[in-house]
Amino acid sequence: MLDFLTLPARSRKPRESGITHVLDKGLGPSQIDDLLHTAAPFIDIVKLGWGTGYVTQDLAGKVARYHDAGIPVCFGGTMLELALRQDRLSEYLTAARELGMRHVEVSDGTVAMDEADKLALIRRLAREFKVLSEVGSKDPDVVIAPRTWVDSIRRELDAGAWKVITEGRESGTVGMFHSNGAVKAGLLDEIVQAVSADRLLFEAPIKSQQTAFIKEFGADVNLGNIPPEDVISLETLRLGLRGDTLLHFH
Amino acid sequence: MLDFLTLPARSRKPRESGITHVLDKGLGPSQIDDLLHTAAPFIDIVKLGWGTGYVTQDLAGKVARYHDAGIPVCFGGTMLELALRQDRLSEYLTAARELGMRHVEVSDGTVAMDEADKLALIRRLAREFKVLSEVGSKDPDVVIAPRTWVDSIRRELDAGAWKVITEGRESGTVGMFHSNGAVKAGLLDEIVQAVSADRLLFEAPIKSQQTAFIKEFGADVNLGNIPPEDVISLETLRLGLRGDTLLHFH
Amino acid sequence: MLDFLTLPARSRKPRESGITHVLDKGLGPSQIDDLLHTAAPFIDIVKLGWGTGYVTQDLAGKVARYHDAGIPVCFGGTMLELALRQDRLSEYLTAARELGMRHVEVSDGTVAMDEADKLALIRRLAREFKVLSEVGSKDPDVVIAPRTWVDSIRRELDAGAWKVITEGRESGTVGMFHSNGAVKAGLLDEIVQAVSADRLLFEAPIKSQQTAFIKEFGADVNLGNIPPEDVISLETLRLGLRGDTLLHFH
Repeated sequence: MLDFLTLPARSRKPRESGITHVLDKGLGPSQIDDLLHTAAPFIDIVKLGWGTGYVTQDLAGKVARYHDAGIPVCFGGTMLELALRQDRLSEYLTAARELGMRHVEVSDGTVAMDEADKLALIRRLAREFKVLSEVGSKDPDVVIAPRTWVDSIRRELDAGAWKVITEGRESGTVGMFHSNGAVKAGLLDEIVQAVSADRLLFEAPIKSQQTAFIKEFGADVNLGNIPPEDVISLETLRLGLRGDTLLHFH
Repeated sequence: MLDFLTLPARSRKPRESGITHVLDKGLGPSQIDDLLHTAAPFIDIVKLGWGTGYVTQDLAGKVARYHDAGIPVCFGGTMLELALRQDRLSEYLTAARELGMRHVEVSDGTVAMDEADKLALIRRLAREFKVLSEVGSKDPDVVIAPRTWVDSIRRELDAGAWKVITEGRESGTVGMFHSNGAVKAGLLDEIVQAVSADRLLFEAPIKSQQTAFIKEFGADVNLGNIPPEDVISLETLRLGLRGDTLLHFH
Repeated sequence: MLDFLTLPARSRKPRESGITHVLDKGLGPSQIDDLLHTAAPFIDIVKLGWGTGYVTQDLAGKVARYHDAGIPVCFGGTMLELALRQDRLSEYLTAARELGMRHVEVSDGTVAMDEADKLALIRRLAREFKVLSEVGSKDPDVVIAPRTWVDSIRRELDAGAWKVITEGRESGTVGMFHSNGAVKAGLLDEIVQAVSADRLLFEAPIKSQQTAFIKEFGADVNLGNIPPEDVISLETLRLGLRGDTLLHFH
């Protein structure tokens, strides 16, 4: 591996900050092998987006491929939302356990949930799993006040969430973002004045969003919903090896 | 495979409705194997987009890979349009036969064709192949009246077309769609009042378009030009396993 | 391979015109094998975009995979810009040599460089490598007068550049393009009145841009920053096998 440039310091696995959380929406075995071959050190956790894990053929083989490389896998939050709506939480958890998953995502971006119920669920699951809870709506027409974001994040961390994810979807156009993909700067400011950025995982699927978070919080900001084909690109943004952040770091 | 949620009914292969028609614009052997490994039950037919089949190296090996998995393959309509323009129909058909193809797409989206000639061609080819005929123009500036769409669709079905494809291109911005990708709702209404949706195959490359058709016609609507990397995502939309359709089905 | 249509003449490898320059931003071994299996005759050179080559695991194995197929590989210009900024040119060149690279890209799209220094660098490197020098800024707010583009291109060719690349980035929204991706027609006119198009390599990542250059300069125009998944599509555009250029050529 090349080693002749001076680059920003980067955390190493297992990371508490500088996490890259990858959105897998249907990779096959060769694609996973390619990703691991080229970029395994930069991947901290893989989410099988929404309910894709439910329909993917040979799911056990797929999950094992990541686990054998030491990379944890979890289902998307939407799958748990539907399981709860159909009163199938225990079946969901059995499936997660049988697949060897150690992380769960708890969201309420599509199916409404009482906050007390969400916090109780986080508390319960946190005894067995690392919980990534998610705040923010998938509905572009739902606007949540910054104060409410902050309160939700604090309570979910107090309930035992490992990290709190700020919503952005695969598209990067809702939740923490305006519909054109720009970061809601005022909302972000209010959140990070109240909560350490290390406890947050910002969904940031688009390069301009990744760039904005890296410039604000540094190379070791936690970023999520990264498309697999952009994992290496994100690592170059973190290290100032791409035009967008080169002059920021060097 | 997971099986603990209650989901909408889905047709099984060989399907007459609920077809997923995939646009392959240049996949290689490992990518095809990945697609088949993770999603073969959801793929009903693969189109080698426009003239990509003409230049792809090892085309016979590629087509055989799909055929061995029981998935039919056809050329894109544009390739037939050029063959007709150069008076090479018989050479085109010889190539299709030698590759073991059982489907052909007949379109006139780029090269103008008299309707009588198009119908005669459909009639002739329907004796040997399943014909997917296509209506609508690839030119964003060409607006065809709804009545004309309906008439064309009916005549092409009468001539023996297996399904009629409504144009959308790879981009989803022409034919059945406005230039911003939104479905032309009035046009769609008029078509489906006259023709059963089961006889149509809607090109719908974009998630918002897939969602709109699924909400209108149900899980088993026929959808085409699906990017390979979105086959699993489309299946989750059909089953209410993604935020966009979850509350519609559950 | 199919051979029954009459198509525009195309150059063959090793090409001086009609070059397809591919942007690899992190492909793994199976993806590279797929690309070579389906499209090797259409790929003239591969660029490891910006600093991706610096962080990619098993870089030597990756580069060898292309080289074994007779396809040259080079680093992105941004990596050299950072090496110069950190006074590590000799380390950069050692790495390039050890990987067997025969091409280098010299750019100043992010880090400012005196023109005299850039020309001296091109002169020096041209003794050992084929130099692709790049003109134009990655900053969308920087507008460079056409006369300045022309002067820079001429001087860099005089200094020994093999081809001069006109900036477009991965996005196709800067340099030679307006922010909406449209070609800057006046700029293009002025350049090609002064310099033969064969000495230029136009970054053109988007289909509409590729189409515009092909219609202007023919099948054998030099095009760069082509996404790997679009190499076959580009070849169909060059040959009139896609709707966008069919009527132009046939």
